[in-house]
Amino acid sequence: MNVAAKLASFSEHWSPRVAGELNGQQVKLVKFKGEFVWHHHEAEDELFWVVRGRFRMDYRDRAGQETSLEVGEGEFVIVPRGTVHRPVAAEEVHVMLFEPAGTLNTGNVRDARTIDDPQRI
Amino acid sequence: MNVAAKLASFSEHWSPRVAGELNGQQVKLVKFKGEFVWHHHEAEDELFWVVRGRFRMDYRDRAGQETSLEVGEGEFVIVPRGTVHRPVAAEEVHVMLFEPAGTLNTGNVRDARTIDDPQRI
Repeated sequence: MNVAAKLASFSEHWSPRVAGELNGQQVKLVKFKGEFVWHHHEAEDELFWVVRGRFRMDYRDRAGQETSLEVGEGEFVIVPRGTVHRPVAAEEVHVMLFEPAGTLNTGNVRDARTIDDPQRI
Repeated sequence: MNVAAKLASFSEHWSPRVAGELNGQQVKLVKFKGEFVWHHHEAEDELFWVVRGRFRMDYRDRAGQETSLEVGEGEFVIVPRGTVHRPVAAEEVHVMLFEPAGTLNTGNVRDARTIDDPQRI
């Protein structure tokens, strides 16, 4: 599986593609640009690995306090279940996700960018 | 977590380091050089992602027939549970593994390179 070639096969933002599956987890490839919706995942931890570019992960704690983390190319971040977050990308960024099969991209929120059944590539 | 920086922090071959954990799975970083031992994992699928360099994955089927797959930088391969395999690297290669926590590097085999309790980095 060549990741760059698979990433070149689609252009939509915020639309994860399933590139592999193992142990009940999925490897997804996705392109971000702009600001995503605030959400959390009730029962799933999520790993974001930057293949190309960079993005900012915003976090909001229970008191409503917001913090941010810059994630650059060749770096990854793990967002634990229950953590309210949103990725924000000033420029397009290419990301690999590792998460349980069936994890919804918008977590506990439904919005225009919710993808119920991601395509396989 | 900067992957290249973490990879620069150790030099041993065949000695995976745990770089992250999520959903009962672990992200490990490892350097391969040379020929590993033939083995399989009874109950774990394994993902090998090449961060730098390239290696060859050898497979042996139930009839003893061997096949190989070259895995280059920016590519990944998933080895399903039960599949007899061994990585072989002519030159040093840097790999990220994604597999269930507790997966033993030598699977069903014990040898000098078995690592029972990989370090965290």
